[in-house]
Amino acid sequence: MNIKHPKESRAILTEIVLPNDTNNLDNLMGGRLMYWMDIIAAIAAQRHSNRTSVTASVNNVSFNNPIPRGSVVTIEANISRSFSSSMEIFLDVWAEDTLSGEKTKCNEAIYTFVAVSKLGKPVKVPTVKPETEIEQERFDGALRRRQLSLILGGKMQAEDATELKALFSKK
Amino acid sequence: MNIKHPKESRAILTEIVLPNDTNNLDNLMGGRLMYWMDIIAAIAAQRHSNRTSVTASVNNVSFNNPIPRGSVVTIEANISRSFSSSMEIFLDVWAEDTLSGEKTKCNEAIYTFVAVSKLGKPVKVPTVKPETEIEQERFDGALRRRQLSLILGGKMQAEDATELKALFSKK
Amino acid sequence: MNIKHPKESRAILTEIVLPNDTNNLDNLMGGRLMYWMDIIAAIAAQRHSNRTSVTASVNNVSFNNPIPRGSVVTIEANISRSFSSSMEIFLDVWAEDTLSGEKTKCNEAIYTFVAVSKLGKPVKVPTVKPETEIEQERFDGALRRRQLSLILGGKMQAEDATELKALFSKK
Amino acid sequence: MNIKHPKESRAILTEIVLPNDTNNLDNLMGGRLMYWMDIIAAIAAQRHSNRTSVTASVNNVSFNNPIPRGSVVTIEANISRSFSSSMEIFLDVWAEDTLSGEKTKCNEAIYTFVAVSKLGKPVKVPTVKPETEIEQERFDGALRRRQLSLILGGKMQAEDATELKALFSKK
Amino acid sequence: MNIKHPKESRAILTEIVLPNDTNNLDNLMGGRLMYWMDIIAAIAAQRHSNRTSVTASVNNVSFNNPIPRGSVVTIEANISRSFSSSMEIFLDVWAEDTLSGEKTKCNEAIYTFVAVSKLGKPVKVPTVKPETEIEQERFDGALRRRQLSLILGGKMQAEDATELKALFSKK
Amino acid sequence: MNIKHPKESRAILTEIVLPNDTNNLDNLMGGRLMYWMDIIAAIAAQRHSNRTSVTASVNNVSFNNPIPRGSVVTIEANISRSFSSSMEIFLDVWAEDTLSGEKTKCNEAIYTFVAVSKLGKPVKVPTVKPETEIEQERFDGALRRRQLSLILGGKMQAEDATELKALFSKK
Repeated sequence: MNIKHPKESRAILTEIVLPNDTNNLDNLMGGRLMYWMDIIAAIAAQRHSNRTSVTASVNNVSFNNPIPRGSVVTIEANISRSFSSSMEIFLDVWAEDTLSGEKTKCNEAIYTFVAVSKLGKPVKVPTVKPETEIEQERFDGALRRRQLSLILGGKMQAEDATELKALFSKK
Repeated sequence: MNIKHPKESRAILTEIVLPNDTNNLDNLMGGRLMYWMDIIAAIAAQRHSNRTSVTASVNNVSFNNPIPRGSVVTIEANISRSFSSSMEIFLDVWAEDTLSGEKTKCNEAIYTFVAVSKLGKPVKVPTVKPETEIEQERFDGALRRRQLSLILGGKMQAEDATELKALFSKK
Repeated sequence: MNIKHPKESRAILTEIVLPNDTNNLDNLMGGRLMYWMDIIAAIAAQRHSNRTSVTASVNNVSFNNPIPRGSVVTIEANISRSFSSSMEIFLDVWAEDTLSGEKTKCNEAIYTFVAVSKLGKPVKVPTVKPETEIEQERFDGALRRRQLSLILGGKMQAEDATELKALFSKK
Repeated sequence: MNIKHPKESRAILTEIVLPNDTNNLDNLMGGRLMYWMDIIAAIAAQRHSNRTSVTASVNNVSFNNPIPRGSVVTIEANISRSFSSSMEIFLDVWAEDTLSGEKTKCNEAIYTFVAVSKLGKPVKVPTVKPETEIEQERFDGALRRRQLSLILGGKMQAEDATELKALFSKK
Repeated sequence: MNIKHPKESRAILTEIVLPNDTNNLDNLMGGRLMYWMDIIAAIAAQRHSNRTSVTASVNNVSFNNPIPRGSVVTIEANISRSFSSSMEIFLDVWAEDTLSGEKTKCNEAIYTFVAVSKLGKPVKVPTVKPETEIEQERFDGALRRRQLSLILGGKMQAEDATELKALFSKK
Repeated sequence: MNIKHPKESRAILTEIVLPNDTNNLDNLMGGRLMYWMDIIAAIAAQRHSNRTSVTASVNNVSFNNPIPRGSVVTIEANISRSFSSSMEIFLDVWAEDTLSGEKTKCNEAIYTFVAVSKLGKPVKVPTVKPETEIEQERFDGALRRRQLSLILGGKMQAEDATELKALFSKK
């Protein structure tokens, strides 16, 4: 199985927050942002795997700052690590004020996708090779998150989650 | 601050998966489902708090079974616990085959909402009082999930997360 | 042909009135509400018949109270009676104010659906057996409405509409 | 109060049935057609009254022929009669096959609109003066339909509905 | 190949500018108007050719007057000339103020469509025969526009564009 | 007035062609693509001007290759030149096949935007300073396109369009 760098599958979406995208406080709706994140994350996953990729799970989406109507929102999707047929995709969201041009990091999210064949069966995907420091950090964290997810899903014993246990035992 | 039962704020959404809602495998898109879950969870949060409620974070959404076009999807939103101004909402999703009438549990998700005033400031919400066994179980789990979220967000030390540590130490 | 109770096919839709759903007075558009009612009524019809069901006609939709942006709208669809392959579906619409939690009945509507095979041919559906008082009342009224519809469509003579004539002769 | 002819407020909508507009049999959804009819009827009502006009009720929509994806749909809205602040709007729907160019009348519908001031209060509208034979026929029928609607709504005694009683007694 | 008049394929779309259609100045978005123009132009092209017709190019769309939310927009599509399998479609856009009923011409656009077979191959379309003065004028201009487009696309030498050269040499 | 490079305002949109975006040949609709181009071009214009920017005109959009459902579409918007308050934005569109990962240039388009104040009045924008060869080429071409547009709009005499005349006289 071949190897790919995160930058080869990076995907970017830029949108204006229109009236249609807002909640009743005139800020971007959480649900709309998740819809956008799902599309752009799927594109990054498809570029990495060259396969149709479907959402498997969503973790740790937090909405820290409300994004007002009229803002420009940029979402960048980068693959952090792959496990057989599944891919962990990091999403970074910035909002940009039109008048000042100022950009604010608004939230991060982690989605997991699975590459599938035309019949919908999982297929193996290329290994991820991180290049930058932040890519390496996210690559390392991906294993801990996967262990946590397996424990919470009842598919792994807490004692076998070596990476994760370290987090609790050392401190 | 007063007390409310989960059933007082329960909210239900039923939709048909139309062509507009599908990905290119003719199954329901993850992003569309998250959009629907966000709306119905907001309704449950607003019914509990009697305030506009905005999405604060999303945890543990997993998409176990693809839902084909033409299925009927039912989403039920129930509050599990509140912490000051935040509310944890459980979402249970079923898909229903038209011909057989058979219902399948497709996925679960946990969203967190914050109740806000008209000026967008957080306001206190009623306490949740679980009644059924499953409500009690989700109420208890909510504290562990909150500790985990605070640790991952760097706002709590792992050693202070008493509920969570129990999970790892005992086994 | 078997028998089903209305509660077996009941369907509920709950939505927030978002900017996208409003007319230029900032109230819910009639057309949007009819679109929602059509979907939820189709779901009730499909649950009763276990077949794809298509809209045959719409009767007596009245919009009594404007529903302002930000309201929560609940639509409940219940089958009242079936005639061979057609099903009469009652829709009850409530709006709910977020701040007060107060619910107001906003309108009622009656839709007729036909169950069809995969080739689009009408197929027979189960008989409806009312249980509650209001279900019985709507079951009885369904026959009068059907006769009126047949007369207005020129498919029945007014003198043969025994149920309907009673309405005019007695008083 | 002045007088207007139906042709002065006539409104026409032409649409292609796109994937987004279809149900799971690949035909136009009833709910989508009602949404389009509501918009074009509102335009005719606003042209007649020169006021914002809101949907008051919908009567007698029947879906006789399924309209397949790819068809061109034309909806023509004509006012038939006005009563103080309310206006009855007739909708005629044709579908057109692209290859043959053949047009088929698919359904008719009758919507009632109310003209409102900026504060949402009903305002008087011009009287309708029919010109053609079909306009005269629909103008006459409007009174019977109004009486029927008042009776069904419990706002008129059946015995006072002189126009309507004639329908049942004579035949 | 047969001949058709522009009026035989004329198509009209009438829409209200709803919140969903506006930019953040509460005027109709350019992109939404282009979407509407594309649909109605495709309908005119399909009526002329009795074939599925796809957008080939867009020329000279200008947005002269902002159209405020709540306006009624009418778009009329007329074929001006055909060249083998391509058709030039003129679009005239009017906005109408609800209160005054006043109509303003807002913009014009020219779209080119190609008629295609079910396999997506271009097919010949009927010749256009102009009847009115404006139809004749647009018919004549279509040849100049086609030459300009071929030159700009590098498919024709400027010196061969006899119609177009006249424009620059004479004056 | 200050100076900005095109790269400072570059904007990128990446989308999957979903069922909702297709025409009845299962290819991306022209109207949908123009809608996406309008949004991303507006973002580039707003980043250059730090003002709300509205579509003024659209020129030379050509649709050379049909883009099938399921493709990934990338649109890049770059400012080529500004004239007082107006900005010319170039759009380059690529489609990407999921399986092969192959990218194809599908079309180009040129949009013109005007920067406006909160009251909707045009305001001056920064000058564009091209850096790369292609940016310089588009910067030079922008003047010819502007002259052509002024002539076609009857606001300039053909003989005064020095840049444009050269095009016809020399060759």
